Amino acid sequence: MSKRINIIKASGDVALFSRSKIERSLRRSGASPGLARKIVNEVEAKLKSGMTTFDIYSAAFQLLKKANARPIAARYSLKRAITALGPTGFPFERFIGEIFKRKGFEVEVDKIVPGKCVSHEVDVVAKNKEKHYFMECKFHADQARATDVKVALYVHSRFRDIMEKIKEKGLCHEIHRAWVITNTRLSEDAIRYGECNNMKMIGWKYPKDRGVEVLIEETKLHPVTCLTVIDDYEKKWLLENNVVLCQDLPRRIDLLNKLGIREKRLKELLKEVRDVCGE
Amino acid sequence: MSKRINIIKASGDVALFSRSKIERSLRRSGASPGLARKIVNEVEAKLKSGMTTFDIYSAAFQLLKKANARPIAARYSLKRAITALGPTGFPFERFIGEIFKRKGFEVEVDKIVPGKCVSHEVDVVAKNKEKHYFMECKFHADQARATDVKVALYVHSRFRDIMEKIKEKGLCHEIHRAWVITNTRLSEDAIRYGECNNMKMIGWKYPKDRGVEVLIEETKLHPVTCLTVIDDYEKKWLLENNVVLCQDLPRRIDLLNKLGIREKRLKELLKEVRDVCGE
Repeated sequence: MSKRINIIKASGDVALFSRSKIERSLRRSGASPGLARKIVNEVEAKLKSGMTTFDIYSAAFQLLKKANARPIAARYSLKRAITALGPTGFPFERFIGEIFKRKGFEVEVDKIVPGKCVSHEVDVVAKNKEKHYFMECKFHADQARATDVKVALYVHSRFRDIMEKIKEKGLCHEIHRAWVITNTRLSEDAIRYGECNNMKMIGWKYPKDRGVEVLIEETKLHPVTCLTVIDDYEKKWLLENNVVLCQDLPRRIDLLNKLGIREKRLKELLKEVRDVCGE
Repeated sequence: MSKRINIIKASGDVALFSRSKIERSLRRSGASPGLARKIVNEVEAKLKSGMTTFDIYSAAFQLLKKANARPIAARYSLKRAITALGPTGFPFERFIGEIFKRKGFEVEVDKIVPGKCVSHEVDVVAKNKEKHYFMECKFHADQARATDVKVALYVHSRFRDIMEKIKEKGLCHEIHRAWVITNTRLSEDAIRYGECNNMKMIGWKYPKDRGVEVLIEETKLHPVTCLTVIDDYEKKWLLENNVVLCQDLPRRIDLLNKLGIREKRLKELLKEVRDVCGE
């Protein structure tokens, strides 16, 4: 049974430590039942009241790395990896754009789209034969911050303004839809307003089992920020040079060499990329 | 003729110093043509390249105070006085609410209004027999920041959601309208989008000759932050105690005493209030 110990969540709220929660998220990242149980036992042994969820996550992450389970560690750190895409939000848009390319959509990032009254900057426009999506990608560096109802409201007005213009020209797709995609929580009002108006609302673990983390897992696209062989400085430098995906790295050996990553570490890195992406 | 000297605006842009602009704003605050000219001459004599509009404003303000023209100085400082209502924005909402009360509206500040999909927090709801206004009061402590199109967009969605609910119940007013009122500039897109959708858009000096500064002058309601007899600490304390208007002070001698303002200074203060408000 779990020790009855209070831990502090990212939001500042206090919750009881739950063995099963950690075990589940380790299993989801690919750890075997035995490895997951072993790690949770070690984490629990070191548990103290007042620890944060981040402390607990870090401990589990270090144990995964030590257990020679780097690809599992990389997947386990997905949420932090997405957060590390910040602070400008632009890599997050590109990342979402890549996901929809992988799903067979034609994608444009940061596009100016004319509306009836004004032109709008839309983070990601994705279309295929039937579908035409206008997506707002809301990135928060602070995981505790929720995307609130104001976002759903302005995305909705923007969408209607764009639709008025599209109707003038004659519709060319069966389905037009506004999306809000965020790397954090969506407020209850944001969800209620968006869904009440037929918008697609995607947040971290929302909808349950269809959240942004599932979207990422499905397409096997992983941000470079999830890797464990390279450090924070190297990740930041890659993002600044427009390399957002692990998948891009094998084609960018030139850039990796420029970063000073050669021979042994390069081999290790490319192995981790293959393991994480499952290619 | 004006000296050809560059000054730095609040936005960081550079502009040529203009005698006539300062003279006009002094005249609008109530200075006689002679006094306005005298002050501009003195300001111009001290002019140096690289000065900010704030330096120039401060010099003119000090000269007005010295010239025994305190009520004119108080009105001259209106823009800064509104800015000093910050940082939370709540005193600005209350201030706008008082203006509409004075115009004969029934007013509620910070009201929860049900919509079709969700409930909304509306800064100011003002109504009379025919009109029903839903107002977003956007306060920026930084005068250089414009209120952008996202504000117009979310206010519009909010308004439509509220209207759907009102229609369900049956309309009770002839005119329903969404307002955006800000103490700073409105972006061009915000204005275009808002007016294209029949929203009322009010900013500093927008619309020309009908901006928020005219709204204030008309009703002769002045924020306590425009007074010159009390200092910044005292103003902040009054705002925290919900005293936003100069007009309220004569009824709140108890609070002023608590602040340590007694006898001679109290007399001076009440005289300035009468002079500023013209009562």
